Amino acid sequence: MSLPWLLRKENIAHIEGGNLLIGDRRKYPFERTFITCKNVEEIAAALKEMVTQGGGPLQVALTTLRLIADSPMEEIKRSAQLLSLARPTNTTMRRTLSAIVEEIEKSPPQERSNHLLRLIDTIETAYDQDYQAMGSLGASLLKDGDVVLTTCFAEHSFILSLMKAQEGGKRVKVLVPETRPYLQGSRLTAPSLEEIGIEAEIITDAMGAHFMASGEVRHYMTACDVVAMDGTAANKVGTLSNAIAAAYYNIPYTIFALSPDTTLQRGEEIILEERDGSELLSVRGVATTLPTLKGRYPSFDKIDASLITNIVTPRGIFAPSEVGEAYP
Amino acid sequence: MSLPWLLRKENIAHIEGGNLLIGDRRKYPFERTFITCKNVEEIAAALKEMVTQGGGPLQVALTTLRLIADSPMEEIKRSAQLLSLARPTNTTMRRTLSAIVEEIEKSPPQERSNHLLRLIDTIETAYDQDYQAMGSLGASLLKDGDVVLTTCFAEHSFILSLMKAQEGGKRVKVLVPETRPYLQGSRLTAPSLEEIGIEAEIITDAMGAHFMASGEVRHYMTACDVVAMDGTAANKVGTLSNAIAAAYYNIPYTIFALSPDTTLQRGEEIILEERDGSELLSVRGVATTLPTLKGRYPSFDKIDASLITNIVTPRGIFAPSEVGEAYP
Repeated sequence: MSLPWLLRKENIAHIEGGNLLIGDRRKYPFERTFITCKNVEEIAAALKEMVTQGGGPLQVALTTLRLIADSPMEEIKRSAQLLSLARPTNTTMRRTLSAIVEEIEKSPPQERSNHLLRLIDTIETAYDQDYQAMGSLGASLLKDGDVVLTTCFAEHSFILSLMKAQEGGKRVKVLVPETRPYLQGSRLTAPSLEEIGIEAEIITDAMGAHFMASGEVRHYMTACDVVAMDGTAANKVGTLSNAIAAAYYNIPYTIFALSPDTTLQRGEEIILEERDGSELLSVRGVATTLPTLKGRYPSFDKIDASLITNIVTPRGIFAPSEVGEAYP
Repeated sequence: MSLPWLLRKENIAHIEGGNLLIGDRRKYPFERTFITCKNVEEIAAALKEMVTQGGGPLQVALTTLRLIADSPMEEIKRSAQLLSLARPTNTTMRRTLSAIVEEIEKSPPQERSNHLLRLIDTIETAYDQDYQAMGSLGASLLKDGDVVLTTCFAEHSFILSLMKAQEGGKRVKVLVPETRPYLQGSRLTAPSLEEIGIEAEIITDAMGAHFMASGEVRHYMTACDVVAMDGTAANKVGTLSNAIAAAYYNIPYTIFALSPDTTLQRGEEIILEERDGSELLSVRGVATTLPTLKGRYPSFDKIDASLITNIVTPRGIFAPSEVGEAYP
């Protein structure tokens, strides 16, 4: 079974006529359209404007490097920096870009472009293998009949976990908080689950504890934007509230971490992005209150290691306290 | 200082030309309009359709009895039952209506109408005094500089607490979760606070824990639809999630209970309303996802007594364990 439309590489980003086209997740599922970016400035702006999110920026960054593979080293470095700054909380993109820059700087100029393209091929293949490995590990944590609560759009590792559980004969259902203000739950997660034949029900962002109290939810599973070496994670705002409730009701909370950040020793070092509070005053262009009012939009929660049961990584499933050892 | 527009009696419900006009809270603050009901069936239907909510149904029920005060006893009994069934979770309305019916059944038929009108006057005056008393008690729990988290629209007791705190020289700010799907936070609470000069900021329903973790929120305060004698409360879905987080962060959680329900000994006896899950698929008529998806809408949470710090009633402020004694 193939990945849902949203997670296929070409729908995250692809090159067409010398431009980078980014799948516009803000319009999904109502439209399957792409934003055309003519240069790296426009790509960085698109990332800032949340045209794509979650694992999307990493794929965008890799495809951007393919687009500019023939550029001088200085231009590649500048571009890598511009892209990294566009989404400071998700450090996988930043670290991947730094590693690439460091690696290709060693190449003689005439071989650099080929080296870069081969390196990106290798990285993409490695990430694909990581996603598959994490999907198998995630599926092993699920039981037949499980109802899983999630938050936002938890992407490849989570979706693959559900697909592999289903292929293994386990029926699972997912409760999907709508994830205001951008509605990633309603717009990205729920339609993607429907597409791959997994039962999904949309709830408000406040209902997680309700369905834990009723005994319906058996597992809470999310992606994460970053995990520090002490097991602290950051993920979409609202994750903390459900993580606290899961601990209260003794329900396991599993996060998927493609790449724990070995440069961050402690949770205190994680940078959380703030976004424009005016997002809170409308939904898809329709006002939800008077224009004189103010909104607040801290995009991310920091989740203490003590609230996390399992961290699923490409290297295995770890308790938060074991991550530092697994990623020395 | 007068109550905000939404809480003035005439804007909740009033009689005009032999009809009952109910302030349409579904349209507020974009429109200040009224639904015209020609008979009790239409009034009950309006309550079911959430034209008004919170303390609104009680005021609607009292005004309905004024409208039909000249009707035969059987018609008054039937009407009281119809109204009670329209909103099963909020038992204050049901209990008030039962008490009225029981009382006026003792009157000779020729005096019944006058007796009923006098009784409603007495009840309305008593509730007004109760609200004022609870407002003073609520204000006493607030400190200068407090940031208060709330949920939904907590009405008279909460609004009066903030007004009295402010009149007493205490500056307070309120973080208001938008309260999907009906957006009572964005549409009712935040504009009402702005109207009376209290600073309000709108957040998503998932952000309560975030602002507790950051140290900003100092108090969680909500209304409740019912409190049982063991201190268990029911309130808008989403309350539980914040109550658990408040306990986790050692932040006091105060509920306002106009009338603890002496007929319910234990939380298990509280009936929670379920509503149509399709409400989760749109906001103010705009689709938030594909029409093929399903939503869930349990309207209320049950909050265990162990999560509640203070229950503010007209008789004083109690710990949950003291409510049974205070309301024998």
